[in-house]
Amino acid sequence: MIEKLHHVGVVVRDIDQALAFYRDTLGLDVHKLETIDDQGVRAALLTLGDSEIELLQPVRADTGVARYLDRRGEGLHHVCFQVSDIDGDLRDLKAAQVELVDQEPRIGLAGRICFLHPSALDGTLVELCAPIATEPAAEDA
Amino acid sequence: MIEKLHHVGVVVRDIDQALAFYRDTLGLDVHKLETIDDQGVRAALLTLGDSEIELLQPVRADTGVARYLDRRGEGLHHVCFQVSDIDGDLRDLKAAQVELVDQEPRIGLAGRICFLHPSALDGTLVELCAPIATEPAAEDA
Repeated sequence: MIEKLHHVGVVVRDIDQALAFYRDTLGLDVHKLETIDDQGVRAALLTLGDSEIELLQPVRADTGVARYLDRRGEGLHHVCFQVSDIDGDLRDLKAAQVELVDQEPRIGLAGRICFLHPSALDGTLVELCAPIATEPAAEDA
Repeated sequence: MIEKLHHVGVVVRDIDQALAFYRDTLGLDVHKLETIDDQGVRAALLTLGDSEIELLQPVRADTGVARYLDRRGEGLHHVCFQVSDIDGDLRDLKAAQVELVDQEPRIGLAGRICFLHPSALDGTLVELCAPIATEPAAEDA
């Protein structure tokens, strides 16, 4: 069911400061930098071979990412696995009684996505994604 | 300098319980399962496309992984980037005054490795690795 490690999500206080390391020191390429208003985050996607690093900076206090930053501080937030059949896989996980955050796939940065509940995975927040071939992007940089 | 996302490290209390999810429910293949005495961990490596998930269970209390588990609980622990020239890259990072855990590469599960200090990376523990072509492995399962 899982094709690859699509990305690792990292919560930061300040994306520009984080980019000074990931982009300028490590030399990673930023292929997207945008603010997603309805999720209350500013996000940067950096290419890492066939995978990505997703930097997430909360821009509002009433979001899961902002609460995570308050509670746990900066650092690794989630890991995202690319799957071939997100509808079927989600159905299978429900049948296996795996606890889910999203009961149905929704549109996210990585395409059609859903989050599993960290209690299902020994504390790790796991996202599944099925990229959409042509993805509209509102670039802010 | 960075070739790909080599693996994501996840700290768990009980590898067998974690494998019930990652191997049995998600269907990932376990290609290594071993206890590394000098690091005080039991580790499982699961194939994820061109990358890996590394599950780490402390088997002694006097290790960084055990202290992490006590302090932060289970979950994402580190991310590992594969590099082409670990000696040169480490030299460049030192020259850029990036704070390091390991001043020189050492042998780890993923080949020749070194850890950067999480304070350098907004709280994220980053490992660099240069895989070794023929890696002896003492399988315990």
